[in-house]
Amino acid sequence: MRKVAVIGIGSSRFGVRNDVNMAELVFEAFKPSIEDAGISPKDVELLAFGSAGAGVWCEEFVPAAVAAEYCGLTGAGIVRCEAACASGSAAFTTAYWAIASGHVNLAVAVGFEKMRQVETSTAIEWIGRAGQYFWEFHNFGVTFPAYYALYARSHMARYGTLEEDLALVAVKNHKYGSMNPIAHLRKRVTLDEVLGSPVVAAPLKLLDCCPISDGAVSIILASEEKVRELGIDTPVWIAGIGYSSAATNMSRRADYVGFESSVKAAGEAYEMAGVGPGDVDVAEVHDCFTIAEIIAYEDLGFCRKGEGPKLLRDGQTEIGGRIPVNIDGGLKSKGHPIGATGCSMIYELTKQLREDAAVEGRQAPMRNYVALAHNVGGTGHYCYVTILRR
Amino acid sequence: MRKVAVIGIGSSRFGVRNDVNMAELVFEAFKPSIEDAGISPKDVELLAFGSAGAGVWCEEFVPAAVAAEYCGLTGAGIVRCEAACASGSAAFTTAYWAIASGHVNLAVAVGFEKMRQVETSTAIEWIGRAGQYFWEFHNFGVTFPAYYALYARSHMARYGTLEEDLALVAVKNHKYGSMNPIAHLRKRVTLDEVLGSPVVAAPLKLLDCCPISDGAVSIILASEEKVRELGIDTPVWIAGIGYSSAATNMSRRADYVGFESSVKAAGEAYEMAGVGPGDVDVAEVHDCFTIAEIIAYEDLGFCRKGEGPKLLRDGQTEIGGRIPVNIDGGLKSKGHPIGATGCSMIYELTKQLREDAAVEGRQAPMRNYVALAHNVGGTGHYCYVTILRR
Repeated sequence: MRKVAVIGIGSSRFGVRNDVNMAELVFEAFKPSIEDAGISPKDVELLAFGSAGAGVWCEEFVPAAVAAEYCGLTGAGIVRCEAACASGSAAFTTAYWAIASGHVNLAVAVGFEKMRQVETSTAIEWIGRAGQYFWEFHNFGVTFPAYYALYARSHMARYGTLEEDLALVAVKNHKYGSMNPIAHLRKRVTLDEVLGSPVVAAPLKLLDCCPISDGAVSIILASEEKVRELGIDTPVWIAGIGYSSAATNMSRRADYVGFESSVKAAGEAYEMAGVGPGDVDVAEVHDCFTIAEIIAYEDLGFCRKGEGPKLLRDGQTEIGGRIPVNIDGGLKSKGHPIGATGCSMIYELTKQLREDAAVEGRQAPMRNYVALAHNVGGTGHYCYVTILRR
Repeated sequence: MRKVAVIGIGSSRFGVRNDVNMAELVFEAFKPSIEDAGISPKDVELLAFGSAGAGVWCEEFVPAAVAAEYCGLTGAGIVRCEAACASGSAAFTTAYWAIASGHVNLAVAVGFEKMRQVETSTAIEWIGRAGQYFWEFHNFGVTFPAYYALYARSHMARYGTLEEDLALVAVKNHKYGSMNPIAHLRKRVTLDEVLGSPVVAAPLKLLDCCPISDGAVSIILASEEKVRELGIDTPVWIAGIGYSSAATNMSRRADYVGFESSVKAAGEAYEMAGVGPGDVDVAEVHDCFTIAEIIAYEDLGFCRKGEGPKLLRDGQTEIGGRIPVNIDGGLKSKGHPIGATGCSMIYELTKQLREDAAVEGRQAPMRNYVALAHNVGGTGHYCYVTILRR
């Protein structure tokens, strides 16, 4: 398998971005990414475009082609990749495959979503369909927070996890998000604010939920040969990739305290990279709801099952702890433009591996220069885990 | 680059398929494909799912995951691929990359679309958005037939192409479609019937347009190592793949008599396969409208520019001619379930290369055992060309 590296990154500001159209939002991420890599648009052979919402919250039916033209990528191959909230990782992985196969030497993975031009209720309805729509949504009216509330209640019942533990995830992630210039919600929150915020789906409150955001991220990937040709001095190598899926019917899941797809995807990624959870210096995990981050600690092997809350309470997932997690604010504070999130994780981890987050006062110490991204689609229906190494 | 083969194929019947739900339709294609390959669902490592219409004409927001569960593929990696009407080829190419890279040994590419449960006008509106929506659709109200009518008028003006030439494409493709048990419109049409059918967008008439269909196709792909391990005796090898894109804004196209993306994609595929147009024994080309097939002859190098009508009139694209084209009925008569079409082309060509179409009385003679698929998305916004060899 050919080696593949990340050689350029760019991100738009996340938030409510009605100041730009979809192509302009993508360009806001694409331009810095090609400048970072020192390439021009005509060097790009393939655009893998992660986005879930064409026809749903995006009126453009072929957003990838429209964005490609605006970015000067006409003539390149184009594919839009969708795996619900893991669409960005699906695009990144597709670009990886194309290069690893030897078919392509330079590709761009774009993650994109623009969700705030439709009514919020429309966006919420469609997110609620990211499962077994005809059975669960129609018959039981399950919304997306309700799915995660089920997991939260189950974790609380089995392991004694407290609402305060969930709230601590929000406190931590908002702390780091307040330091991140591209974050959607750039403000700290206190434990009392989280616990006192309106209930959305008990035990999850408003501040346990990530916001609905607009955003775009662009990642330039290159073959080893291209890295040398371009004289890139800080390539970040893709060391491991794992992906898996789980039953869409909740009734067919073994339990509601962990995600099988995360465990399997992580196992594959660790094996391919030849590292274990203890080697990871910094991680981005899929905290669409606070409970999801706690479960991710356990599924990824950062601690034993049921000990996620303790890892958090002990400060081990903050900078200075054993394994800093979501120190860009995570989905919770940075925001979650669905298709952009997977690429946004790669953006942040590349910054961390290059030790470029120091200027924002949120650099994780590097021992092994190993970083991990964990991106979930639906309620664990898909999972992609990516391990990067400098 | 590792060698990759098609080792199993299956197709649903195309047509108005309100007798099945989306997962059942996919299973109708998937089941024969795994039986053909002699594998079980648990052998599949990756599902690349070509479909364009989630949220548009399909209420399922994550059709790939729902279909995967129904087919017993839970646990496999899943990605949905979209490139408008070339979504099936995008999925096939993604599965190819994953295997060629060495990351995966066995993958399935599914092409799927279910377009007939919504109002026909809704389906037509969304197809009309497969371009520069905010500019062309909103300002000029261009429908999809109107785009191709523009190309037809331009070809007629420059090369003297006649409405009768366009009609001959329909006559040929319906002849073969009438012999294909999975085709949507299994009936012959006469020249007079085509010319006398109602005008949709002059000079295109109803019988110049492909129908709006439901359908699914499943293709099993494997690495060379896996082909040996399974003892497959008739692998069909993927010899060349090319893909390209063009401006979404029609005003930025150089002319309206050919598709740049087709020419570029074909060039890349021929080069990779080490063959030329004269070596191709049978081809599937994207005849969403009759004019598109004539232009494809020229863009793919089967004849010189402007000589497409002559090639057709001389019977060179029928069985017995120099290069039989769309002898399964094509999009025109077999039908065009958007995301399924790219995989349906591979299905048909694999049948031809195995010489299994003889039983239906529509086998192309094989000299070189080389076949070509040409799948266009939008109005030439995307093009994927695939060359297979037995």
